[in-house]
Amino acid sequence: MTTTPSADSTNRQIRLAARPFGLPKPTDWATVEEPVREPADGRLLVEVSHISLDPAMRGWMNDVRSYIPPVGLGEVMRAGGIGRVRASRHPGFAVGDVVYGGFGVQEYADSDGLGVHRVDPDLAPLPTYLGALGITGLTAYFGLFDVGAAKPGQTVLVSGAAGAVGSVVGQLARLTGCRTVGIAGGPDKCRLLVEQFGYDAAIDYRSADLGAALREHCPDGVDVYFDNVGGDILNTALTRLARGARVVICGAISQYNNTEPPTGPSNYLSLLVNRASMTGMVVFDYASRYPEARAELAGWLADGRLISREDVVEGEVTDFPATLLRLFRGENTGKLVLKIR
Amino acid sequence: MTTTPSADSTNRQIRLAARPFGLPKPTDWATVEEPVREPADGRLLVEVSHISLDPAMRGWMNDVRSYIPPVGLGEVMRAGGIGRVRASRHPGFAVGDVVYGGFGVQEYADSDGLGVHRVDPDLAPLPTYLGALGITGLTAYFGLFDVGAAKPGQTVLVSGAAGAVGSVVGQLARLTGCRTVGIAGGPDKCRLLVEQFGYDAAIDYRSADLGAALREHCPDGVDVYFDNVGGDILNTALTRLARGARVVICGAISQYNNTEPPTGPSNYLSLLVNRASMTGMVVFDYASRYPEARAELAGWLADGRLISREDVVEGEVTDFPATLLRLFRGENTGKLVLKIR
Repeated sequence: MTTTPSADSTNRQIRLAARPFGLPKPTDWATVEEPVREPADGRLLVEVSHISLDPAMRGWMNDVRSYIPPVGLGEVMRAGGIGRVRASRHPGFAVGDVVYGGFGVQEYADSDGLGVHRVDPDLAPLPTYLGALGITGLTAYFGLFDVGAAKPGQTVLVSGAAGAVGSVVGQLARLTGCRTVGIAGGPDKCRLLVEQFGYDAAIDYRSADLGAALREHCPDGVDVYFDNVGGDILNTALTRLARGARVVICGAISQYNNTEPPTGPSNYLSLLVNRASMTGMVVFDYASRYPEARAELAGWLADGRLISREDVVEGEVTDFPATLLRLFRGENTGKLVLKIR
Repeated sequence: MTTTPSADSTNRQIRLAARPFGLPKPTDWATVEEPVREPADGRLLVEVSHISLDPAMRGWMNDVRSYIPPVGLGEVMRAGGIGRVRASRHPGFAVGDVVYGGFGVQEYADSDGLGVHRVDPDLAPLPTYLGALGITGLTAYFGLFDVGAAKPGQTVLVSGAAGAVGSVVGQLARLTGCRTVGIAGGPDKCRLLVEQFGYDAAIDYRSADLGAALREHCPDGVDVYFDNVGGDILNTALTRLARGARVVICGAISQYNNTEPPTGPSNYLSLLVNRASMTGMVVFDYASRYPEARAELAGWLADGRLISREDVVEGEVTDFPATLLRLFRGENTGKLVLKIR
């Protein structure tokens, strides 16, 4: 049974038109309209309601070897999203199901169901499935517990601490019994870190002497440094590692729009002095363990020990390019989501 | 019973006179003569015959926090060495024993016996106890097997591959069934890598395009990169990591005499793309396991599967400053040792 929107419905899509140099410009994108079609056998049609915006998207736009292939020129921009099944010829999904999947930046997605799963709108608000219950929360979970191996009593330092992943990492570390110190830009975010996300201390990298602040707030050194930003902040954090520290390389938002080669962490020999490690992570590697992690995250959300904060922008898919830039200006707190009106 | 050299014997010492800026200059050192004294109760007197020269010494001369305290100004320069017990009031050592210990750059060492152990001159030539059977071999062993977790069939890349540690790492990796690729400076060293140390391939970083050579010789990527040099070589090696690769940070000889901040590895995000790790090591952490490692290394030496190559300079303790500079000019192959005439 299908209830495809009327045959003359159109699907607006945001496609990658050019490889950006530095920050993506309007001319790097193209808006394309296509008719909405009945799904073929084994496929489903999803009307997208919420689109995830992630710093990693900037990397997907470059034509370089990475952990997934780049978005091709002329292709719909890759994005995770939430939507409602409007038509289905797939045995696993029924019309009306609310689903998560890699639907791309478009109003309607035609999907084979791979990587698509149902979400329960009664259990949590839909944006939360892109936040603490989505890839964001899973990244925080596996990065902190598996790669970072955070233990009670240890000091966990997080950069981008008011961002999507960072705001969850701090809370999970606090739940574990760690001392948590967050780095963010500006007094408003720093207040949020302490008041809402339970960080023991917040450092405003825009106004503080970061080295001095780290000496003050991490007097015994840093056992786990969860890095979302790279650049000078990573380099300074390396100077405060405790013996045996783990540096989790989750992202490097300060470097993604560089037009020159990125800055390397010149203090990397702190890894030797402190017998420390620096390890990169990609959350997709943990897919087989998503269910256990989601169950634990959902439990903490349900009992109020974990807050998922989303920064929801309401608009059209055509607002995606401008909304994405908010990430790189540091304007979001928590998970940035575009809700389609 | 003691047989201390005649009471008017003198002990020449090389002491640190000033903190070097860049390469150590003659004026950074002072030669001091002291009378040789009878050891006090519980102590022993060692006549030093062989002094170890190590890149790490340059770091010990800086007044910075590191994995061991710096050598103080006016103190005898720290060094491992081999010598013969000339007098003993220590229950663990007898006159005539040949011993390894941290005797410093001097002709006679007065020791409390801590960190001193007997070596067997019939089992191996004395310089070998500073090479493959000494800290050098132990560093290679624990760095490759514990930190690097090298497995049969994997590709192991080594920088400073003709040096003290590097020449052992390559051989241990080959013994493990790894493909081994060494980086060294100049055609003579590169020939040695293949002909004597059994490397599958050698890259002369002075003449080769390192990136192209790594693509040629490590077609499936690098599973373990054992880094002794840092700088541009580390940065280029990062571009060839295989998925899940381990980068062992053992040293950074290219950076030790910098007068400006060291170069950071700008390609560090390869750790993220490849889910790789970069881990610092200090061999002293493995002290409790030295016996097992020494036994295994001695077995391989005895059956000829491992060669310990030492570059032995004969001279006086006063030749130490000039000999040390050979390390930083890349003039040694294998372990650099000063044999006291």
